[in-house]
Amino acid sequence: MNRNISNVVVRRMPRYYRYLSDLLDNGIERISSNELSKMMNVTASQIRQDLNNFGGFGQQGYGYNVEYLHQEIGKILGLDKKHHIIIIGAGHLGQALANYVNFEKRGFVIAGIFDINPSLKGLSVRGVQIRMMDELDEFVLNHDVDIAAFTMPKSKAPEIGEQVVSLGIKAIWNFANMDLNLPEDVIVENVHLSDSLMQLSYSIEQRRQNEE
Amino acid sequence: MNRNISNVVVRRMPRYYRYLSDLLDNGIERISSNELSKMMNVTASQIRQDLNNFGGFGQQGYGYNVEYLHQEIGKILGLDKKHHIIIIGAGHLGQALANYVNFEKRGFVIAGIFDINPSLKGLSVRGVQIRMMDELDEFVLNHDVDIAAFTMPKSKAPEIGEQVVSLGIKAIWNFANMDLNLPEDVIVENVHLSDSLMQLSYSIEQRRQNEE
Repeated sequence: MNRNISNVVVRRMPRYYRYLSDLLDNGIERISSNELSKMMNVTASQIRQDLNNFGGFGQQGYGYNVEYLHQEIGKILGLDKKHHIIIIGAGHLGQALANYVNFEKRGFVIAGIFDINPSLKGLSVRGVQIRMMDELDEFVLNHDVDIAAFTMPKSKAPEIGEQVVSLGIKAIWNFANMDLNLPEDVIVENVHLSDSLMQLSYSIEQRRQNEE
Repeated sequence: MNRNISNVVVRRMPRYYRYLSDLLDNGIERISSNELSKMMNVTASQIRQDLNNFGGFGQQGYGYNVEYLHQEIGKILGLDKKHHIIIIGAGHLGQALANYVNFEKRGFVIAGIFDINPSLKGLSVRGVQIRMMDELDEFVLNHDVDIAAFTMPKSKAPEIGEQVVSLGIKAIWNFANMDLNLPEDVIVENVHLSDSLMQLSYSIEQRRQNEE
């Protein structure tokens, strides 16, 4: 299963999961595709189609069981397993990531934080000690690490990319504002903040031109 | 012009701009679509098609003038104009955004930073003073503000969304991990970090299943 689902549909799954988490937090046990559709601002038929890709989950005229749907989408997203993350770059962005309690609720555990700045050595973020980069190799050899978050400056990213791949880490959450050239079996999820800001600027410019 | 360009093509423009910025920084004046294609890992024909949407810019057999192309894509993205940003939420993420020198290079100026935490009052980030939220209304009335970056906790986001819209701000860069329900003419660019992390987890799970 799950083999031929389009990337567009997959990209919508985390959003379903987010809404279902909120419903659960609010104690709502059951929801119709129409109600979910109004909340999420997509058509009820798209919701039904999207969820049918993964086997349905709903009963006609009865709506979705929120907890079950939440759990099943969680499995599809791999959230039923723990993921251990190291954060490389303990600046503001790295510390912001380390401080997100929500990530932990979803099974993402911050295993370590690394930097080259000696003034950060020994400090902790939410109980996780900041270590120096020369400890990275040994740390990864002795701990489960599934994901490396790249929050170091762009200029360091290519070299550290090669280092973590050589250590066997095969998933990178990349904030370093550049595309990494790594072997094909390494998964890279990019968060290009400057691209996002340019996209916003483009939309502002379009609106301005339309108003003229 | 620019009216009927697909969203997919538009989404690729910031990436072109980023590569062209790097080429410029490295003193490269001219590049063929083949060279650019290798760097960016997309086909040369896609590059030609994408850029033709905006009127071309290249001369057959001669390649692109990097500076000119950079400048023209910058105009398409609205980067030839200054944008004044306020950051609401001066935690680690807000401070990380305020510290990005690159944003300023592209015309995004941090005009103000706001928080409700009195212990931050009077502190500065890169020369910009952190102000308290009760100063927000007056600040916006007396300064140009084009974009509000939302880095406050999710629970505060809906209320502050209404506040900034009532103050006339019509573009939001939203990190608050929820979708904002705002009037249609307000542009919202979402950076949903938890969605991105779940997407990464999904890819890891797919790879695991494929390897079995």
